Amino acid sequence: MAAEPKKIIIDTDPGIDDAMAILLALRSPEVEVIGLTTIYGNVYTTLATRNALHLLEVAGRTDIPVAEGSHVTLTFREFFLFMASLFPVKKGTKLRIADFVHGADGLGNQNFDPPKGKPLEQSAAAFLVEQAKLHPGKVTVVALGPLTNIALAIELDPEFCKNIGQIVLLGGAFSVNGNVNPAAEANIFGDPDAADIVFTCGADILAVGINVTHQVVLTDAERDKLIQSNGKFAQYLCKILEVYFSYHHEAYSMRGVYLHDPTALLAAVNPSLLTYTEGAVRVQRTGITRGLTLLYNKQKSFGEVTEWTDKPTVKVAVTVDAPTVVKLLMERLMES
Amino acid sequence: MAAEPKKIIIDTDPGIDDAMAILLALRSPEVEVIGLTTIYGNVYTTLATRNALHLLEVAGRTDIPVAEGSHVTLTFREFFLFMASLFPVKKGTKLRIADFVHGADGLGNQNFDPPKGKPLEQSAAAFLVEQAKLHPGKVTVVALGPLTNIALAIELDPEFCKNIGQIVLLGGAFSVNGNVNPAAEANIFGDPDAADIVFTCGADILAVGINVTHQVVLTDAERDKLIQSNGKFAQYLCKILEVYFSYHHEAYSMRGVYLHDPTALLAAVNPSLLTYTEGAVRVQRTGITRGLTLLYNKQKSFGEVTEWTDKPTVKVAVTVDAPTVVKLLMERLMES
Repeated sequence: MAAEPKKIIIDTDPGIDDAMAILLALRSPEVEVIGLTTIYGNVYTTLATRNALHLLEVAGRTDIPVAEGSHVTLTFREFFLFMASLFPVKKGTKLRIADFVHGADGLGNQNFDPPKGKPLEQSAAAFLVEQAKLHPGKVTVVALGPLTNIALAIELDPEFCKNIGQIVLLGGAFSVNGNVNPAAEANIFGDPDAADIVFTCGADILAVGINVTHQVVLTDAERDKLIQSNGKFAQYLCKILEVYFSYHHEAYSMRGVYLHDPTALLAAVNPSLLTYTEGAVRVQRTGITRGLTLLYNKQKSFGEVTEWTDKPTVKVAVTVDAPTVVKLLMERLMES
Repeated sequence: MAAEPKKIIIDTDPGIDDAMAILLALRSPEVEVIGLTTIYGNVYTTLATRNALHLLEVAGRTDIPVAEGSHVTLTFREFFLFMASLFPVKKGTKLRIADFVHGADGLGNQNFDPPKGKPLEQSAAAFLVEQAKLHPGKVTVVALGPLTNIALAIELDPEFCKNIGQIVLLGGAFSVNGNVNPAAEANIFGDPDAADIVFTCGADILAVGINVTHQVVLTDAERDKLIQSNGKFAQYLCKILEVYFSYHHEAYSMRGVYLHDPTALLAAVNPSLLTYTEGAVRVQRTGITRGLTLLYNKQKSFGEVTEWTDKPTVKVAVTVDAPTVVKLLMERLMES
């Protein structure tokens, strides 16, 4: 008898490669998607929620709940809550939104009809806490955006880190240049304070950074195969992929796109597709390298106490079986 | 006819491996040591000056001048100069001194007699500026400690960066953990503000970080060969190396020592012993990764202006011909 599928919640900011990851998850028998939670990043949170609902309608999976996440970073949130206790203020802050990568609508400027569905009344953080408590040790969060919702879940319930099975997160640039600036990767840069809380919370964490996802490329030729297939998901994705290919051509001079989110999703589906190193990870929160992720590999013992001393160990991906990741993605999306 | 030897000034905080580098330089026909400048780091500056004078007396090279450098980091120096204009204050600040690596005297706790010589009246920065102006494009600074003196020379004379031939610096941990803490290497951590000024000054800079010097090890067996040789320098160094071997055994569980300073010195003597990458380097000046060096390799173009944009390119060592470095060091130190 096959093992019970792993329950996953995808925390997501769709986003073109988020859309790929979500549709891939729905075609992966190894996992059961028990919810989507939304976050800003590729788009603002409101649009992320709309796109999450839209994608579930495209897939015919409106049975899966969507919980809307934070509209602002952790620090701004605390500031706003404090201010709101003094004055009635409107929420909002200058977030870094990557609409130049994913299109203004986050889904390749396709102007899809608004979804019919609605998100839960519950916040993303409350949903995460509830589900982790309901299925202790059984739920994996696949975090594909800035880590604000996960940090809020940790703040909401000190038991969350124990209750959650695993947090597989797409984030960081370990020993390589970032993709926002030379120091920082976009998801960590989106909320460095939240990321530092998550990395040091003690949960079972598996981080997949761009040092790994930059090894996984969907080429023009592979996109052509998707276009020619009868797969419903493949057909849908080819429509939205155009903008994403254009961005990669411009920023990296490459004919293909990085499969960031699908790689992180497949790390949750089948961890043996990657290899890992272990150590304590801290996030720089200020200055020119704000958002930088730094892994201490414990090869050297320091005489003095450092900011990494006694912090919990996490797994950080080092290599990936890129051909198999691309093959799995293609096969599953081309199913009709 | 042999090429004219390259004029070098060694900026140094002796320090056991500094002593190795200085004695090695004096036995390297490719270079002519035209001065030593001193800096805190392995020891306080006063002791660095004393040790520099002592080493030149050991080598019988008291013809080489020693110029004493800054006693404090750049920022503290500015603060003290300001305060001194208001009140008569005593210089001093909490520096990170690595006496646990090199012994309390910086030279393996050997309690050598005080040197007879005296340093120049001129400061290290003034000496650097003067020599660079005297031999434009012909002087190489080999900087083996925190970069305060070099930054002061840049502040003293805006032409210094043009006049100086090359700055070969031992510093940084490029894409690897540091040796002070997981983020920072000791020389850069010693004065991150000065290091950022030097890396972005536009001079011809060649940085040798611990990512490279950790590949160059002098083993116990090689030390035994030094002990058994008749070389005067080898004999001297074996006396002071004991403390350095003990530290490495404790901190890194290794039977051998890293040849940090000699490797940087040999990079100045013969740059083809190493390979290099190029890019802009910035130094993080605050927070938990203070002292971190981050190279932007220019593989990705960023839409936004970053702190690395338009900064001058420097060379950063990537690989080293370690067997040849060790062989050269052994041969030259064992000469009688």
